[in-house]
Amino acid sequence: MPAYGNDELTKSVQDLFSHIFETECTVFFATTGSAANGLALSQLVPPYGATFCHEFSHVQMDEVGTPEFYTGGAKLLTLPGEQGKLTPEALSQGLKFYFPEMTHHVKPKALSITQGTEAGTVYTCEEIMALTEIAKEFGLKTHMDGARLTNALVHLGCSPAEMTWKAGVDVLCFGATKNGALAAEAIVFFDAADTEDFAWRHKRSGHVWSKNRFMAAQWQAFLKDGLWLKLAGQANAMASRLAEGLRAIEGCEVVYPTQINEVFVTFPAGMAEGLLEKGASFYDWVYPGDRWNGRLKRLVTSYVTTTEEVDAFLTQARHQVDS
Amino acid sequence: MPAYGNDELTKSVQDLFSHIFETECTVFFATTGSAANGLALSQLVPPYGATFCHEFSHVQMDEVGTPEFYTGGAKLLTLPGEQGKLTPEALSQGLKFYFPEMTHHVKPKALSITQGTEAGTVYTCEEIMALTEIAKEFGLKTHMDGARLTNALVHLGCSPAEMTWKAGVDVLCFGATKNGALAAEAIVFFDAADTEDFAWRHKRSGHVWSKNRFMAAQWQAFLKDGLWLKLAGQANAMASRLAEGLRAIEGCEVVYPTQINEVFVTFPAGMAEGLLEKGASFYDWVYPGDRWNGRLKRLVTSYVTTTEEVDAFLTQARHQVDS
Amino acid sequence: MPAYGNDELTKSVQDLFSHIFETECTVFFATTGSAANGLALSQLVPPYGATFCHEFSHVQMDEVGTPEFYTGGAKLLTLPGEQGKLTPEALSQGLKFYFPEMTHHVKPKALSITQGTEAGTVYTCEEIMALTEIAKEFGLKTHMDGARLTNALVHLGCSPAEMTWKAGVDVLCFGATKNGALAAEAIVFFDAADTEDFAWRHKRSGHVWSKNRFMAAQWQAFLKDGLWLKLAGQANAMASRLAEGLRAIEGCEVVYPTQINEVFVTFPAGMAEGLLEKGASFYDWVYPGDRWNGRLKRLVTSYVTTTEEVDAFLTQARHQVDS
Amino acid sequence: MPAYGNDELTKSVQDLFSHIFETECTVFFATTGSAANGLALSQLVPPYGATFCHEFSHVQMDEVGTPEFYTGGAKLLTLPGEQGKLTPEALSQGLKFYFPEMTHHVKPKALSITQGTEAGTVYTCEEIMALTEIAKEFGLKTHMDGARLTNALVHLGCSPAEMTWKAGVDVLCFGATKNGALAAEAIVFFDAADTEDFAWRHKRSGHVWSKNRFMAAQWQAFLKDGLWLKLAGQANAMASRLAEGLRAIEGCEVVYPTQINEVFVTFPAGMAEGLLEKGASFYDWVYPGDRWNGRLKRLVTSYVTTTEEVDAFLTQARHQVDS
Repeated sequence: MPAYGNDELTKSVQDLFSHIFETECTVFFATTGSAANGLALSQLVPPYGATFCHEFSHVQMDEVGTPEFYTGGAKLLTLPGEQGKLTPEALSQGLKFYFPEMTHHVKPKALSITQGTEAGTVYTCEEIMALTEIAKEFGLKTHMDGARLTNALVHLGCSPAEMTWKAGVDVLCFGATKNGALAAEAIVFFDAADTEDFAWRHKRSGHVWSKNRFMAAQWQAFLKDGLWLKLAGQANAMASRLAEGLRAIEGCEVVYPTQINEVFVTFPAGMAEGLLEKGASFYDWVYPGDRWNGRLKRLVTSYVTTTEEVDAFLTQARHQVDS
Repeated sequence: MPAYGNDELTKSVQDLFSHIFETECTVFFATTGSAANGLALSQLVPPYGATFCHEFSHVQMDEVGTPEFYTGGAKLLTLPGEQGKLTPEALSQGLKFYFPEMTHHVKPKALSITQGTEAGTVYTCEEIMALTEIAKEFGLKTHMDGARLTNALVHLGCSPAEMTWKAGVDVLCFGATKNGALAAEAIVFFDAADTEDFAWRHKRSGHVWSKNRFMAAQWQAFLKDGLWLKLAGQANAMASRLAEGLRAIEGCEVVYPTQINEVFVTFPAGMAEGLLEKGASFYDWVYPGDRWNGRLKRLVTSYVTTTEEVDAFLTQARHQVDS
Repeated sequence: MPAYGNDELTKSVQDLFSHIFETECTVFFATTGSAANGLALSQLVPPYGATFCHEFSHVQMDEVGTPEFYTGGAKLLTLPGEQGKLTPEALSQGLKFYFPEMTHHVKPKALSITQGTEAGTVYTCEEIMALTEIAKEFGLKTHMDGARLTNALVHLGCSPAEMTWKAGVDVLCFGATKNGALAAEAIVFFDAADTEDFAWRHKRSGHVWSKNRFMAAQWQAFLKDGLWLKLAGQANAMASRLAEGLRAIEGCEVVYPTQINEVFVTFPAGMAEGLLEKGASFYDWVYPGDRWNGRLKRLVTSYVTTTEEVDAFLTQARHQVDS
Repeated sequence: MPAYGNDELTKSVQDLFSHIFETECTVFFATTGSAANGLALSQLVPPYGATFCHEFSHVQMDEVGTPEFYTGGAKLLTLPGEQGKLTPEALSQGLKFYFPEMTHHVKPKALSITQGTEAGTVYTCEEIMALTEIAKEFGLKTHMDGARLTNALVHLGCSPAEMTWKAGVDVLCFGATKNGALAAEAIVFFDAADTEDFAWRHKRSGHVWSKNRFMAAQWQAFLKDGLWLKLAGQANAMASRLAEGLRAIEGCEVVYPTQINEVFVTFPAGMAEGLLEKGASFYDWVYPGDRWNGRLKRLVTSYVTTTEEVDAFLTQARHQVDS
């Protein structure tokens, strides 16, 4: 089999992306979402440039500076926003400060949106468009971090095209790993003009598999017959069930709308410890200066989570209240 | 004359630094404060590391990403603080988030303090020590951005040693340019153990003058017979006089304590425009989200500012009120 | 299953490496050999440092500057050497030039050896030791690019320990992909003191699989019951058979000793074209200034190459001569 | 005075460059030649790109990797060439290897020529044009390292325009430091289209003087009334006189044509030591693998070197032979 993505399977999967997104796409692959984000941003943002992103976004908080590594040190300019979502107001204010152009400040070149967000919420297509229109006005390209894209898509019920390029997104990092793949992320450019020399950046990062057919095979299986939507739908449904159940338990507060496969909750005293002791697995969800002072927990469901597992968790939580 | 700093004048100036700081210093030179800061931080912080700094510090806001360039993309982690000053509380909270060590987050390696601050204020030696003690506890080195160091020193009336290494500072970027030099900044290491291979970093940045004696000559003149203190003293005194005068004018609000050679003031409607029209020169002082909504002005005095000039400015300001 | 390599399978595979190399190893994984090399070198070589390597090595020629990307721009200093192998003489001469230390030159920090080489040859353990001893004398660490390590090991018939850390290698990039894995490369540190903060570099590069058990599973299968040695042995044997057959054909010149799974050959006029037409698959092997003026071909055998395939190729080659 | 180059003097000096080069120039300043070269190359060459240069050029040998620092790790591809000069043949061969485009190799983006060369020789305008024509054919931009530009210009007796943009040079790094300035180098773009966002790169490097008028003043004095040509002419004349004298001394071999202010010579046994003992000052001139095995010396004359000094040196050299 030809190596480095010159095989037939890789080519057919690239066509599949164009079909699904209803436009000619240029697709590159990466093993992790961090790498995909870093690579995409390095194409949009020069070292002296900057990217606006949410203050608690994955690129800012959880990638050990991957974007800075890939871009050669371009800054992330963080903006606040409730429930993990950027607002047109915050973006406009940020841009107002950095323009008119002044060489003492970094030069904004991109906007990065996370869909679904780190708070488990989802931008509507209109919300995305409101942001990308401002970005375009100032000459910024828009990157979408779509590690949980399919979950957001299922939530909105719109088409992949509507949520991405039709809403003004230039480059999408589309993740399959969180919904079932072994290690498969795709960098999807919607305009070929944005891909100049990207093949060199890509190869230089060490993310081009010699046996790329095994990367392509994951995508083929994932995207075939709507499997991706089915898997994300199951994960979302389980999170909804979980959130609903938790809301009914005294002292539990679900703090964000549950729109994808994550539930953010504060438990009454002792409950988290009790659940962990019984074998549950979840993380503290903390930010510098978070208002819950470290008490917020993130519960994640997946495509293999079952109704029985959710119900057992809820039963256990109720036991904790009673005891 | 020997090139690249091997001349006698350069050597004697290095001794002068050790004399002034009352300890063996290792000194390197740079042409600008941004370069000095970037070089110093690149020695302390690896690419995957991070530096805590004030959210409105020069390294974060006004250097186009110089620290990111020099460090190879290490992040600046910004902390809030009134009047341009970091607090032990904010630093502790930041450190609490980033430790225990977790490879999803960048690894804090340095603290950067600006003395005098971007708000024209000055840390006391005790305030510096309170910060550096926390830094040391977590294994962080402390960098001091001293573009206005002499002004701060004059304000405090302490010794250079007390305000720097005795207060826990590891590397100082000491500026002479703002107080009279042509282009002279010094990177001062207080512990030779911190300078390993720094000569290579320095040369690689293109900041080593072949005719370094002309750099050294500036420092010799600056530091000789207390000239530096005299120049900074004049600048400070003029700022104090200006601030005092402005406070007495109706509608003028001096928003920060005037401790060095900068006055931050909001003028009543129309006054700024009137003063600029009459030939005054000052800048808007804006931040993303600043509470004065763009109305804050920064007035800077210098070592050549005279009492007559300050008084003329004040007279003009009073005229604006009257008219 | 715990993510990011905290699973039991990953842990057991790390133990397996220590068992095979007969010493406590610290192992990290990467998807490609280029990434593994870049990551390993970034740990050994600071941005102002340099790595000695063969002028036609993979790190120099075929990674689009991956080492420069990962190290933040550290130079590769190329040395000549027959049959793809570095010599102690060339290394000594290079070191003599770069030392005594002079800040106008980059500072050598590492030596990179490729085992088996890009010319399909293999260093003996003594040859490796001769190089690493010089490296150590000058304070350089030694990196081994082992994309074809198993093939070299089978050729030498020594133990993995003898060919690596016992011969002075500090960090090994060990590849399984070329001998059967999907995408599995390992960065093996033989001294834990060399791994400080490496986990951050690793995560920052985007090469840490969240579902790392799938990476570990490949290694488990590869290293179990000597499968790796069997696979490489088959590839090597097929290359030997191919080389032997080619040597017997008039006008074919096998230009390097065939020690692993590669045969470098020049064909008589027209033969290459004839073979390609009949469905054979091989590459031109060119270098800037190569002595064969573009006529050298690289034939690669693999773990799935059969005796029948080799013989069919040879038969076809003989037909080309006869016709 | 307005800061950061917005002063009248800076503006008038920029006009002076356009006048001297007979075309609209865009000029930026730097303190050292290394910085100027690094900055210029970073504008022409992306991180995954490459620059062809002479194997013994200053950018390759003597800048501790400054180009790699500024470009974010782009490779220098070295080419051989007699007497410090690149040849069209070597460049063509290099380009033939790197094209057709292949993502396993770095992508050549620039050619760097040194005028006068590190061997003290000078390209004719025709030689430059022969190189830049090949470069243009492959889409490469041409950078000229002109640390000794004025010396070369005096040697050729042509116009600045003829030796630069009329011969196909896109960006010139023009040095005044070696011919009398304190620390003044200029990055001269001949096509404004090549300067996009360069002001941000420049500021980010820490090479923009706040008191830029002192940089401009050096250039004003240097370029006024032909002073630059007079100074370089004196240095060149003294080198010619020195070379001529040395050629007449038994056992001395001047190994390169003396075309600027440098004489490369091998002395008979003991002479170098004798001269150094008598107070002469010169350097060993060594390369990895140089044919003189470390015996080559570089003698540099300057704008303040006098006939008497040259003659005294020659007298001393003759004494060494006699004794």
